[in-house]
Amino acid sequence: MNCKPINIKDFTPAEGFVMRLQKLIKREVIPYQYEVLCDRAEGAEKSHVVKNFENAAKALRGEDAGDGFYGMVFQDSDAAKWLEAVAYSLALFPDKELEKQADELIALIAEAQDEDGYLNTYFTIKDKEKRWANLLEGHELYCSGHFMEAAAAYYEATGKDTLLNVMKRNAEHIYKRFITEKHEGYPGHPEVELALLKMYRATGEKRYLDLAEHFVDSRGAGGNFYKREAELRDWTVWGNNPDDRYYQQSYAPVREQRDAVGHSVRAVYLYTGMAGLAAQNGDKELFSACRTLWESITQKRMYVTGGIGSTCIGEAFTTDYDLPNDTAYAETCASCGLMFFARAMLENDLNGEYADVMERAFYNTVLAGMSLDGKRFFYVNPLEVIPGISGETATHWHVKPQRPEWFTCACCPPNVARTVSSLGTYAYGTSGDICCCHLFAAGDVDFENGVKLRCSTEFPYGFTVKYEILSGNGRLAVRIPSWSESFSAKINGTAAEYSAENGYAFFGVKSGDVLEIELDDTPKFVYCSSKISENTGCAAVTRGALVYCFEGVDNNGDVLSLSLDVNSKIEQGEFIEEPDVYSLKINGFRTSSTDGLYTTRRPEAVPETLTAIPYYLWGNRGENQMRVWINYR
Amino acid sequence: MNCKPINIKDFTPAEGFVMRLQKLIKREVIPYQYEVLCDRAEGAEKSHVVKNFENAAKALRGEDAGDGFYGMVFQDSDAAKWLEAVAYSLALFPDKELEKQADELIALIAEAQDEDGYLNTYFTIKDKEKRWANLLEGHELYCSGHFMEAAAAYYEATGKDTLLNVMKRNAEHIYKRFITEKHEGYPGHPEVELALLKMYRATGEKRYLDLAEHFVDSRGAGGNFYKREAELRDWTVWGNNPDDRYYQQSYAPVREQRDAVGHSVRAVYLYTGMAGLAAQNGDKELFSACRTLWESITQKRMYVTGGIGSTCIGEAFTTDYDLPNDTAYAETCASCGLMFFARAMLENDLNGEYADVMERAFYNTVLAGMSLDGKRFFYVNPLEVIPGISGETATHWHVKPQRPEWFTCACCPPNVARTVSSLGTYAYGTSGDICCCHLFAAGDVDFENGVKLRCSTEFPYGFTVKYEILSGNGRLAVRIPSWSESFSAKINGTAAEYSAENGYAFFGVKSGDVLEIELDDTPKFVYCSSKISENTGCAAVTRGALVYCFEGVDNNGDVLSLSLDVNSKIEQGEFIEEPDVYSLKINGFRTSSTDGLYTTRRPEAVPETLTAIPYYLWGNRGENQMRVWINYR
Repeated sequence: MNCKPINIKDFTPAEGFVMRLQKLIKREVIPYQYEVLCDRAEGAEKSHVVKNFENAAKALRGEDAGDGFYGMVFQDSDAAKWLEAVAYSLALFPDKELEKQADELIALIAEAQDEDGYLNTYFTIKDKEKRWANLLEGHELYCSGHFMEAAAAYYEATGKDTLLNVMKRNAEHIYKRFITEKHEGYPGHPEVELALLKMYRATGEKRYLDLAEHFVDSRGAGGNFYKREAELRDWTVWGNNPDDRYYQQSYAPVREQRDAVGHSVRAVYLYTGMAGLAAQNGDKELFSACRTLWESITQKRMYVTGGIGSTCIGEAFTTDYDLPNDTAYAETCASCGLMFFARAMLENDLNGEYADVMERAFYNTVLAGMSLDGKRFFYVNPLEVIPGISGETATHWHVKPQRPEWFTCACCPPNVARTVSSLGTYAYGTSGDICCCHLFAAGDVDFENGVKLRCSTEFPYGFTVKYEILSGNGRLAVRIPSWSESFSAKINGTAAEYSAENGYAFFGVKSGDVLEIELDDTPKFVYCSSKISENTGCAAVTRGALVYCFEGVDNNGDVLSLSLDVNSKIEQGEFIEEPDVYSLKINGFRTSSTDGLYTTRRPEAVPETLTAIPYYLWGNRGENQMRVWINYR
Repeated sequence: MNCKPINIKDFTPAEGFVMRLQKLIKREVIPYQYEVLCDRAEGAEKSHVVKNFENAAKALRGEDAGDGFYGMVFQDSDAAKWLEAVAYSLALFPDKELEKQADELIALIAEAQDEDGYLNTYFTIKDKEKRWANLLEGHELYCSGHFMEAAAAYYEATGKDTLLNVMKRNAEHIYKRFITEKHEGYPGHPEVELALLKMYRATGEKRYLDLAEHFVDSRGAGGNFYKREAELRDWTVWGNNPDDRYYQQSYAPVREQRDAVGHSVRAVYLYTGMAGLAAQNGDKELFSACRTLWESITQKRMYVTGGIGSTCIGEAFTTDYDLPNDTAYAETCASCGLMFFARAMLENDLNGEYADVMERAFYNTVLAGMSLDGKRFFYVNPLEVIPGISGETATHWHVKPQRPEWFTCACCPPNVARTVSSLGTYAYGTSGDICCCHLFAAGDVDFENGVKLRCSTEFPYGFTVKYEILSGNGRLAVRIPSWSESFSAKINGTAAEYSAENGYAFFGVKSGDVLEIELDDTPKFVYCSSKISENTGCAAVTRGALVYCFEGVDNNGDVLSLSLDVNSKIEQGEFIEEPDVYSLKINGFRTSSTDGLYTTRRPEAVPETLTAIPYYLWGNRGENQMRVWINYR
């Protein structure tokens, strides 16, 4: 059974956790990023994105290109991701002024498009002759992909098609090059595949679907394209090794790939495109390849927080069960991408497993990427931080103990913004007459089968979820989270009958019904496979979707000497913030310190009450130790 | 109280652990390395060392330099370390044929010395104009230092002074440049400092002592010399960063340095030179600086195995308590260097602490560097190995799960060879009328105070040490190892009186006396500071000087799911090899495997008898898991 996400405009948030996040994105992240793009944000690194478009437009008009191009080769994509986030946000919270800013930026982007449809300020300003000569590093298809996503989103949210038309011309340009003229190649950084699918869905243009298929199926086939390409040019952007076919997932045709490898963001963007195509075309073979890669990630290469990509070297997957806590990369963007992949898998197969992972990634790693005030961002999401080592030593330099401000490579903050702002499309989907509720997000939902419902919940802190059927009759598929050992349901106050299949409870509902779900709110200890060498003898603490962590500030400054008493009950702790965020209190022990490095005297274990807070909240109270996995007794 | 090491010829090994090792070095390592140097060793990487000297000699004679130079910039030092090991080995086991090989190589080296005393094949063959222009990377002083050590050793062992005279001319050349002509500079890789001291002791030439002092005291003083030097040339050897003043311990004058930093071999070679100078000159200030650096290493930056340098990035120290097991560097050479440093500290201060560390480094990391058959070598000595991750992933590539054959950079094997072959000089020393027994090594010792003794022991597997006084009267200082909770002594069968001070037991002895020491043979659990994040909740197993480890081959292929019952007694296990090497048996548990990566079901802990073997023996039975630190309950 497949399940299509709802449209962005079919979710109207209501008071609850998700809406508060979406408002934070609108209030803080979107305006701040706009200032960044315009180089008006104090303290932020120079972006130059708007200037790049202005300068590219000048160059195209034959004028002097001003101060030229500045930034990463994929700097354009910052504008695209901002526009996409704006589109989703406008769908939730109409805002004429914001829409005007977006329209102006879109107009500028249109000016920077060449008459043949080409759109990329780096090559337009620097050297038009180098276009399409370095797919390995050039990020032209990547940037196009992000603009396509933005175009489809902006069209869907506002009905305005200026950007969509720009990107149709761009897609035609790409189609001409790679299909009509048969130039060899596929993107070094996958993204355009999933984006072309969105363009296809927004426009119905079959060529975009064909082009997406082309990029997916040519990848890794016919030897090493990147090497052939590299041999034809005498320049590089930053010296990527064309022989590293794992880094960019081209070591085999995608249908034959078995392990999730290489740069983790590239990987999940690729797999998202593959899974979307599989659903679109009913391509069982391609879905089966996706399933294999999904299992590789989620059964062998994923942190308990839904983080993926365990090494900073290449920001990459490594090998099975290699999940270091202290040197983790676990990029925020990669967990956004894992959510994309999960949503695309649901399009093929309504299975709670996909939504479980989507939820795990969202409530833990994606949200940890952003500070409580929406002003600072983690790119790297470690599961252990020790000030003095983290961010300091050569092996831990990438693991910052505090959220930094906006980076030059500003990939993660706008990815969080667009993911949070479009959360409705992850939470809800339609499968024929079935309304699918994958995630628990308060708001009104219009399903395309005619059912309208209102979801009320304080999830992830409240464990009651109420669905009022505002109109229509049909079936409701509500996910039974794998973490919920209990699951009870009432319709109109009476115990409801339901059938459970593949992690969903199926209910027949009619207009006016009120379905109330009770999820398991028990905090629990979680254990991991003993194959993960980093965590042997350790447990983590979870409650519902949230993984908890231990910070020094709550635990006498030292979490390294703590151990958990897993035989005791986890209790609610101190109030943290409105409306109902509390820490958890856990019985445990603190081992006494030793005199030197090593001793034969067994350290004493002194009972102590330990405090855990939700992982995504860590690092909001100054630099201090943090650990997710703690030894237990 | 200071303590001078005995001369190499004053120790004659007797049947026991140390002699067996020394014979192994003579039988396997020395002949094999000679074949390597001559490019006749099958399977070994090309060395070209002998050819380099031949070609340099040709170049000096104005002939064509044949096939030129090949190898690392410090390739010459392989010949030097071989000669030094040969010297020590000849002192133990006279061998005319081996001596002839060494004499021939020395003659060749003499031919490769320029008439001004300069000796270095890299610069002689490649470009004489570049001499002394790149102290940062050029390793000229480093190679000279190794030849000086070899020269002093060969002279001491054989009485032959050909190489000593070569190195006197070389030392004069260096003196002229850096002292007489006042050229600025000090070595990028310390070594010449400790070597000049050996030259001074072998020849009595005060200029060598002055030169050593000069290099020690100019280091890190007066801004960044390496940067000034780099600005004067347009070439590098391998692009070392002159601004990285930690890497080569030049961030401050050495007397002001507080933390052991940078490349760990460079560090301990420097500190050895400093400590030797401090002892030679009675320089309390310098000794105090050494003491601070010693504490930095041994109280905050040393593995339980005596390994140092916890990151492969720069083969370097990192920061306090950062001691990862799985990505450790812990180079074999660095632990040899730690022994050098410890011996030099004993020259300043007779304190058992130094010998404790010397013993820890020797019996664990240094010996682990060599396979049981003396044919394969670890450069890196991890405390955890997981095939599939170790040696495979980008972060673990340097951690080989099996001892490789001789490397191109053949630093470690000859370092093990020279350390093992000269162990008598680490084990025994003289302090006035006191005969100092730092390590337990069977053999006859002639102390310069006239006492001769015979030590019999099967240490580290036997815990009885017998000292027979063959002639002379005096005092014996026998180290009371910090790991030995008990210590009993009998003289001629009767409980002996002794005074204990600074980790030594002092006995009055006379010719004919037999002193018998009983050390604590109880296997023990060792715990570490909770500041070492990698080991929280873990214990290691030791017996005497030996740290034990758990290998998959003894533990059903999986050591990750093991935990120790530290309340139980550790028993002797299976016989491993002659004469009395046994494994240890420890009660423990194996946790059941989980279904997936994460589960709320607590894994069962099933009792199991665990097997540990001495750490230095690991990796001799094929590729498998290995761990030193194991969770305990």
